Amino acid sequence: MKNETYIKALLRQPTDRTPIWVMRQAGRYLPEYLEVRRQAGSFMNLCTSPELACEVTLQPLRRFPLDAAILFSDILTIPDAMGLGLYFVEGEGPRFEKVVTTASDVRQLKRPDISTSLAYVTDAVALIRKSLENEVPLIGFSGSPWTLATYMVEGGSSKNFAKAKGMIYSDPATAHRLLDTLADTVIDYLNAQIEAGAQAVQIFDTWGGALAPEMFAEFSLQYMGKIVDGLHRNYDGATIPVVLFAKGCNAHLEALADTGCDGLGLDWTITLGDARARVGNRVSLQGNLDPAILLTTPGVIKQQVGTTLASYGKGQGHVFNLGHGVTPDVDPENMHVLCESVRELSPAWH
Amino acid sequence: MKNETYIKALLRQPTDRTPIWVMRQAGRYLPEYLEVRRQAGSFMNLCTSPELACEVTLQPLRRFPLDAAILFSDILTIPDAMGLGLYFVEGEGPRFEKVVTTASDVRQLKRPDISTSLAYVTDAVALIRKSLENEVPLIGFSGSPWTLATYMVEGGSSKNFAKAKGMIYSDPATAHRLLDTLADTVIDYLNAQIEAGAQAVQIFDTWGGALAPEMFAEFSLQYMGKIVDGLHRNYDGATIPVVLFAKGCNAHLEALADTGCDGLGLDWTITLGDARARVGNRVSLQGNLDPAILLTTPGVIKQQVGTTLASYGKGQGHVFNLGHGVTPDVDPENMHVLCESVRELSPAWH
Repeated sequence: MKNETYIKALLRQPTDRTPIWVMRQAGRYLPEYLEVRRQAGSFMNLCTSPELACEVTLQPLRRFPLDAAILFSDILTIPDAMGLGLYFVEGEGPRFEKVVTTASDVRQLKRPDISTSLAYVTDAVALIRKSLENEVPLIGFSGSPWTLATYMVEGGSSKNFAKAKGMIYSDPATAHRLLDTLADTVIDYLNAQIEAGAQAVQIFDTWGGALAPEMFAEFSLQYMGKIVDGLHRNYDGATIPVVLFAKGCNAHLEALADTGCDGLGLDWTITLGDARARVGNRVSLQGNLDPAILLTTPGVIKQQVGTTLASYGKGQGHVFNLGHGVTPDVDPENMHVLCESVRELSPAWH
Repeated sequence: MKNETYIKALLRQPTDRTPIWVMRQAGRYLPEYLEVRRQAGSFMNLCTSPELACEVTLQPLRRFPLDAAILFSDILTIPDAMGLGLYFVEGEGPRFEKVVTTASDVRQLKRPDISTSLAYVTDAVALIRKSLENEVPLIGFSGSPWTLATYMVEGGSSKNFAKAKGMIYSDPATAHRLLDTLADTVIDYLNAQIEAGAQAVQIFDTWGGALAPEMFAEFSLQYMGKIVDGLHRNYDGATIPVVLFAKGCNAHLEALADTGCDGLGLDWTITLGDARARVGNRVSLQGNLDPAILLTTPGVIKQQVGTTLASYGKGQGHVFNLGHGVTPDVDPENMHVLCESVRELSPAWH
């Protein structure tokens, strides 16, 4: 590996500077992504074609000095592989042909065979890994069981998660069965990504923050802990770091660190200094510039990069990122300013 | 006042039971509301007619044993009175004809004369107060300066507040000028509501949780503090409690309590026990059942009411509420179960 800064920072080893990658770094703000997306015809075609997924994964690395690549895929590949029939309505987000509503629906769900139903993902991982030629590491990822369950029970996106919450409050046994099946599947899925070449993995709990604290512990955190325990933590001679990103869950940082993961992703509603004081002796921290800052000016971006680095402070264990994905309206030039600012300003903190 | 439970609880005085009111208790889940809304023709007609606003304010009190009424109005009356031209697109939320984008736009904004431009609100307050015949107290309210500013700068609702955040990061002086004008106007507005008969007031900072911590302190909290300092805290021989509800701002409870307000509204992502341990020696706490629980069954609702009361624990200072407004799909029978459960289960905690 020519650039190990990202892996070393996640493992809290010394580095010369702070590495950076950005959630959704491959995405709609890049004209070359839009061109491939147009050629693919549909978002699902893009996800299920290893060649196209590889191409868009590599695009931001050709433009910006990023320290990691992340697999281009969707978090809903797992429910699709379980037979729910994922599709996308333009401008409205993901939908499923089938929903999981009753205890009987949950009992009929099968843990899918990754090597057949999700081969398009592991094929993409293998192709990207090869194409990267050991320049930077490749990150694999999955949605968390709770986050996947919300889409499966609601049949798509939701504002208040009435059905998914209805299940955990009214029929917790069925909810646990669903979440346990999903946790086992996520373990299979991420281990298959690692076997195919992923050098770190991240679990996204996008909707954990919608839960009351005791419900988060029981219905989301518990299953992320099971996954952390079930993953390959060493593979092919390398340590594979595991990162949990639970958006809107700053109240639970200690409990998230207690899962035994290597790093925590943070949204921008907590300072890195506060987060580090609470859990930074146990895990690395990834984040956490407000993505809206990429919509301002180069001067503001550079200044806020400085503030973020200073908030984390001296020493190892920080991976620079946004607190959420890049938005489609960002000027790619501002992404450049972001990456260059981290390169320029971070050595002083190491 | 025949029923002072709500006021006493907010002032942390002993009561025999825990009072309850519910955000959006007058609203679309009630068929009688939908009927008046239909007669009004538009949402703005409903808000600007004191008689209709009074009628819908009183509707939930005829059905449920609630301990307070809350003025039926919209948080965007202030920007409308400043000349921005509020209108509603069916199914899409609020919009403004004019937006506030530049330093020049902000300089031209005038602090409106409440007695003329917002007389329809104070007339509604006076009429509701009279119609209540001192059965229960009447709550007045306003949006916070930051929350109002987001709508004024964005021209309506927003997902990521790119323009409003752009202003605070790129031109903080202009943002401060806007927020200070809004704070002065909110003081005028809430004092006018108190003079017209409101017996408590609540400030909603719906979007404070979208800000990074230091930005929340500088651009939202500071101005809520100014408002708390500027309000009539005693009027016509009565103490007027002030409640701050800053959604998604659990990290800032201590700072919110430091404003000198009487109570804090809480969303459901923190336990009342934890919040009380942090700030409950200084302020009363209002909340915080997840509104999604009203979409389950009477058994689950009663059980979760019990859990919420137990989390707060013994003694004064708790006003029962949801952690956010009632959603339109709630069965009114479940609201009944909620109110009755609080009546039945809460005396044991006093």
